[in-house]
Amino acid sequence: MKILLGNPNTSPEVTARITAAARAVASPGTEIKSATGHFGALIISTRVDMAIAEHASLDMMTSEAADCDAAIIGASIDSGLRAVRQALPIPVLGLTEAALHVACLTAGRFGLVVMGPGSATITREMVAAYGLADRLAGIRWITAAPANLLADQQSLIAPIAATARRLIDEDLAETVILIGAVMAGMPALVQPHVPVPVIEGVSCAVALAESLVRLNLPRPTQGSYAKPA
Amino acid sequence: MKILLGNPNTSPEVTARITAAARAVASPGTEIKSATGHFGALIISTRVDMAIAEHASLDMMTSEAADCDAAIIGASIDSGLRAVRQALPIPVLGLTEAALHVACLTAGRFGLVVMGPGSATITREMVAAYGLADRLAGIRWITAAPANLLADQQSLIAPIAATARRLIDEDLAETVILIGAVMAGMPALVQPHVPVPVIEGVSCAVALAESLVRLNLPRPTQGSYAKPA
Amino acid sequence: MKILLGNPNTSPEVTARITAAARAVASPGTEIKSATGHFGALIISTRVDMAIAEHASLDMMTSEAADCDAAIIGASIDSGLRAVRQALPIPVLGLTEAALHVACLTAGRFGLVVMGPGSATITREMVAAYGLADRLAGIRWITAAPANLLADQQSLIAPIAATARRLIDEDLAETVILIGAVMAGMPALVQPHVPVPVIEGVSCAVALAESLVRLNLPRPTQGSYAKPA
Amino acid sequence: MKILLGNPNTSPEVTARITAAARAVASPGTEIKSATGHFGALIISTRVDMAIAEHASLDMMTSEAADCDAAIIGASIDSGLRAVRQALPIPVLGLTEAALHVACLTAGRFGLVVMGPGSATITREMVAAYGLADRLAGIRWITAAPANLLADQQSLIAPIAATARRLIDEDLAETVILIGAVMAGMPALVQPHVPVPVIEGVSCAVALAESLVRLNLPRPTQGSYAKPA
Amino acid sequence: MKILLGNPNTSPEVTARITAAARAVASPGTEIKSATGHFGALIISTRVDMAIAEHASLDMMTSEAADCDAAIIGASIDSGLRAVRQALPIPVLGLTEAALHVACLTAGRFGLVVMGPGSATITREMVAAYGLADRLAGIRWITAAPANLLADQQSLIAPIAATARRLIDEDLAETVILIGAVMAGMPALVQPHVPVPVIEGVSCAVALAESLVRLNLPRPTQGSYAKPA
Amino acid sequence: MKILLGNPNTSPEVTARITAAARAVASPGTEIKSATGHFGALIISTRVDMAIAEHASLDMMTSEAADCDAAIIGASIDSGLRAVRQALPIPVLGLTEAALHVACLTAGRFGLVVMGPGSATITREMVAAYGLADRLAGIRWITAAPANLLADQQSLIAPIAATARRLIDEDLAETVILIGAVMAGMPALVQPHVPVPVIEGVSCAVALAESLVRLNLPRPTQGSYAKPA
Repeated sequence: MKILLGNPNTSPEVTARITAAARAVASPGTEIKSATGHFGALIISTRVDMAIAEHASLDMMTSEAADCDAAIIGASIDSGLRAVRQALPIPVLGLTEAALHVACLTAGRFGLVVMGPGSATITREMVAAYGLADRLAGIRWITAAPANLLADQQSLIAPIAATARRLIDEDLAETVILIGAVMAGMPALVQPHVPVPVIEGVSCAVALAESLVRLNLPRPTQGSYAKPA
Repeated sequence: MKILLGNPNTSPEVTARITAAARAVASPGTEIKSATGHFGALIISTRVDMAIAEHASLDMMTSEAADCDAAIIGASIDSGLRAVRQALPIPVLGLTEAALHVACLTAGRFGLVVMGPGSATITREMVAAYGLADRLAGIRWITAAPANLLADQQSLIAPIAATARRLIDEDLAETVILIGAVMAGMPALVQPHVPVPVIEGVSCAVALAESLVRLNLPRPTQGSYAKPA
Repeated sequence: MKILLGNPNTSPEVTARITAAARAVASPGTEIKSATGHFGALIISTRVDMAIAEHASLDMMTSEAADCDAAIIGASIDSGLRAVRQALPIPVLGLTEAALHVACLTAGRFGLVVMGPGSATITREMVAAYGLADRLAGIRWITAAPANLLADQQSLIAPIAATARRLIDEDLAETVILIGAVMAGMPALVQPHVPVPVIEGVSCAVALAESLVRLNLPRPTQGSYAKPA
Repeated sequence: MKILLGNPNTSPEVTARITAAARAVASPGTEIKSATGHFGALIISTRVDMAIAEHASLDMMTSEAADCDAAIIGASIDSGLRAVRQALPIPVLGLTEAALHVACLTAGRFGLVVMGPGSATITREMVAAYGLADRLAGIRWITAAPANLLADQQSLIAPIAATARRLIDEDLAETVILIGAVMAGMPALVQPHVPVPVIEGVSCAVALAESLVRLNLPRPTQGSYAKPA
Repeated sequence: MKILLGNPNTSPEVTARITAAARAVASPGTEIKSATGHFGALIISTRVDMAIAEHASLDMMTSEAADCDAAIIGASIDSGLRAVRQALPIPVLGLTEAALHVACLTAGRFGLVVMGPGSATITREMVAAYGLADRLAGIRWITAAPANLLADQQSLIAPIAATARRLIDEDLAETVILIGAVMAGMPALVQPHVPVPVIEGVSCAVALAESLVRLNLPRPTQGSYAKPA
Repeated sequence: MKILLGNPNTSPEVTARITAAARAVASPGTEIKSATGHFGALIISTRVDMAIAEHASLDMMTSEAADCDAAIIGASIDSGLRAVRQALPIPVLGLTEAALHVACLTAGRFGLVVMGPGSATITREMVAAYGLADRLAGIRWITAAPANLLADQQSLIAPIAATARRLIDEDLAETVILIGAVMAGMPALVQPHVPVPVIEGVSCAVALAESLVRLNLPRPTQGSYAKPA
């Protein structure tokens, strides 16, 4: 099985980080093919970045997916998810979407750790767009930026764990999701300090992509996800 | 006052149609500056088109808005609305968003006439994303395509009016919104056959844009709509 | 264009305050005709006041609107809004309704500054009744009463701005609405201290009323807003 | 125990009808004191009527309740309910509110039979305002007016039963509520033809009023229902 | 009238506590017949306990209800409520369901005092399952366990009252519900310290059961509550 | 990997059917261990059955899971899901829950085909309890019973496909879920006649169980899913 993991960010460091995380969770025999966005922001964060990334993600994913069995959009914004899902004949997942559904299958309400208040606002909109607002216990943020996580994971363990604990103790979250492609690999570091499961999107997306490939569902020929004319 | 009306579709016919409708409703002294998308679909309709149009709309709107007091994204998909709103220092409106809010200010629940079931699905997602699902009485469709409306408005009066009546009689809609940039100008033709107000996006967006210019609200310096760094 | 601005409160001071604010935002050529409630509370605040004001507002608005092109109910409770909208053949707006929709057209979720916890409870019910609960970031209150605002705006700038900042920083509000007819004129004083747009109902209602007059929508002949027999 | 049953409609026939129904369900020892509205519509039906009835109901209820242990607002519009609840130191119920809660305590989702589409729209708003939209299976209407029910109950049994059956068979309603003060007494006639419980507001309100009197809850001294100053 | 009050917990102390509370509120002539669960947890608290109690409650209630006019499931989890409601030809109520509806009939939004965060999570799910999430102002907890309440009510008055006040002052609750069978009798002790009505489930369920008996609704013969074949 | 597939129904035929379906989709190396309920209904269908099955499922699953890596509750009612999830240290899935989440990951809104109106009511409650009501396009039923599906799949292909088509054409469903353990194996028969993906719970649950095992999430030590004391 070959899974395309496309990073719509234009930063190769993020591609490397998520590719390593994907390979760590993939089944033996699953190949991870990585790709990086051709244009747009180094790290998608603003609404302006997001609009460009819709296009960039679609462009990258459709040009790289030819020989793949599933595809993962490797940004927490899930850039272009609906379009890529329509465009490709294979299962397509977004990082945040995947993590939200794994959290639902694991316990009750989930809490989200994001990087900054802007991300909190945008992630809340995403949760609602996926129809999962009733499962949201709370969103809280650390003040670090993605670049900080790329540079030094260790120093962020404590603030992330503390934020997770507030989600659990005050908001009654029963799983904690670390939102951000650069959170790949962090759950293992944070988990020892947190009393409920801590997850992030890359590993969830790889695991779910393998499931969906196994289910071998046909491409729709009617509806908004049917192949464009 | 100068309002940019940018059509993120790449079809000059649609630009002409919406520009005429905008000028018909604009106050004396309001200038409508029109623009057409530089790349993407002739008529945005699929999810793939929508992803490209997010970028195309942002690109067109930011390159054309320099001397304008407000901006309207001239497609019913409201392509790139949140990004353009963040990018520009002036009020920005989408056609469908504008019509939905005018309907709210006019009566109770609104009914939507769209072109085909695919548009029904996507428009429902838009209504929910705007937080207005509780105001939605129903969505019904005619089988015509935008090209039909461009070619011949007269023959579509009857099916649109019949669809509107079902929204009113069965779904208890109290305003009817015709969804689609090409619906510009249709309300006047359909209204004589429909017992509640019939509206469409271009005229609503122009009227609301003039209001927002008058309110002269400052650009935010915090939050997800603050100017990107 | 002539807009009726009727204050269903029986306090002429409030009428004077909102009339001045309305005239400040109205277009050249728009005349503001003011009126004051004939019976009921000086300042509508309790549920008992609200029930009486439904009637008082309907009575005043229908008796004064004969030569007007639009009508605004000048209390933040939007007293009698639905009834007046049914009774009159012209656009009718409420202060809070108008501000909520302007906020929706400006950014994401809005935060509300109200005067006291009782107002918070009632305003929350109004937001839900308008179908806009999904757009509500939070409601917070200052401890001042309307009389304080009438007597001394300056001393309330700081507490209002501080409350607005908590809505922005903690609740992630992206616009702030000052709820209360007596808030007319306050945004200009508070705005310099707040990083997102600050709005209130009178100016929003006047601006929207002008828009709706321009749209010239017909009166419904069917549904719950059709002219009573 | 003495219960005030005040009809905010100004029609003595409706007062007589609901008073008889109330006495039929009241416990031995419970006295029903009836009253009729002093001003407003004979039968409240439009939004204009509703605004006047807010005041009329408050006026009538507060002037008649002095020696009563509970109060029921005898119109399906529940006119003035929140205001009367604040104004009086005793339990206060509305007909529709009471029926909705009895239905919730009896089975799953409820279906509503109303008189005409206008009533459907307004009743839907009421259900939402009570926070019970999730329990609503559907609303369907007969074409009769309240005067028809006052004049001839027998001829309406069949259309009401047929409408109830559609609510059950198509909308999966598990209780059926007949909305309208004039529906008092109808459930006994309709029930033989309907396979789930059929209820109406007067009997539900009397039964719940007796319960609430027994609970003897104190009047709040804080919040939006505290006694007005 | 005879009401079965069955405690699906297996603790006779809880049965005694709730039986006394039920008798204190029952009308003269109403007999309370008590029963205790035959198997399962002493005090139902975890999800594991809840699953067993679904069965234990059904088993106990159906074996004891033969000569009763109504039935109350005497645990705040409302164990087996839907099944017992289907199984028996008489009205069936749960403690929490009853208290939530009484609160709705009394004021606006309710606040819940529970024992511990686990109960908060589960009670929130119950409120949503009853379709009443829109009426929920907040849930806050004391750190006591049911055994503490059985052993010593006096020492818990202060923490419960303090928690209630936070629900009122911060969350704007307008009634306060004490969740837990062992809260029977507590409202009278707490009420003097709290400015809005304080209620608990046993008294509410008894009062509502008497109402429902009086309404004498038929058993459904269709739908999910019809008698099992 | 070993997955427990426990059928809380007491019918060995259903166990055989779902076990075959599970083995057909399981990865090489995944062993399916099947079990059948020890007490309760042959086919869980009523609310009474459901209450007993909560206990029966917990009992069976906890007694059989000792050497397993994941567990699936093999009834569409997802009997005891939350309790089993708390009781066991391994991932636990329900058939309907699994299918709903796979549908979410595949397209937009899902449509459900159930067996009879009673199942429609109960399944709607389940969808809401999982927080997925916003993703529900519609529920429609065939008139067959589970026994019919066990006896003769072929004759039900046409009615299921016709029902699916109505969900797609009228309700705009973009995936179709066949609800019921006995639907195992049916998608392959129905899919050729339906233009969007058709899924059922057993295959989805097996595929997701494998994913969750791979993610290797820790058991919570806090919250409502922590191991009972």
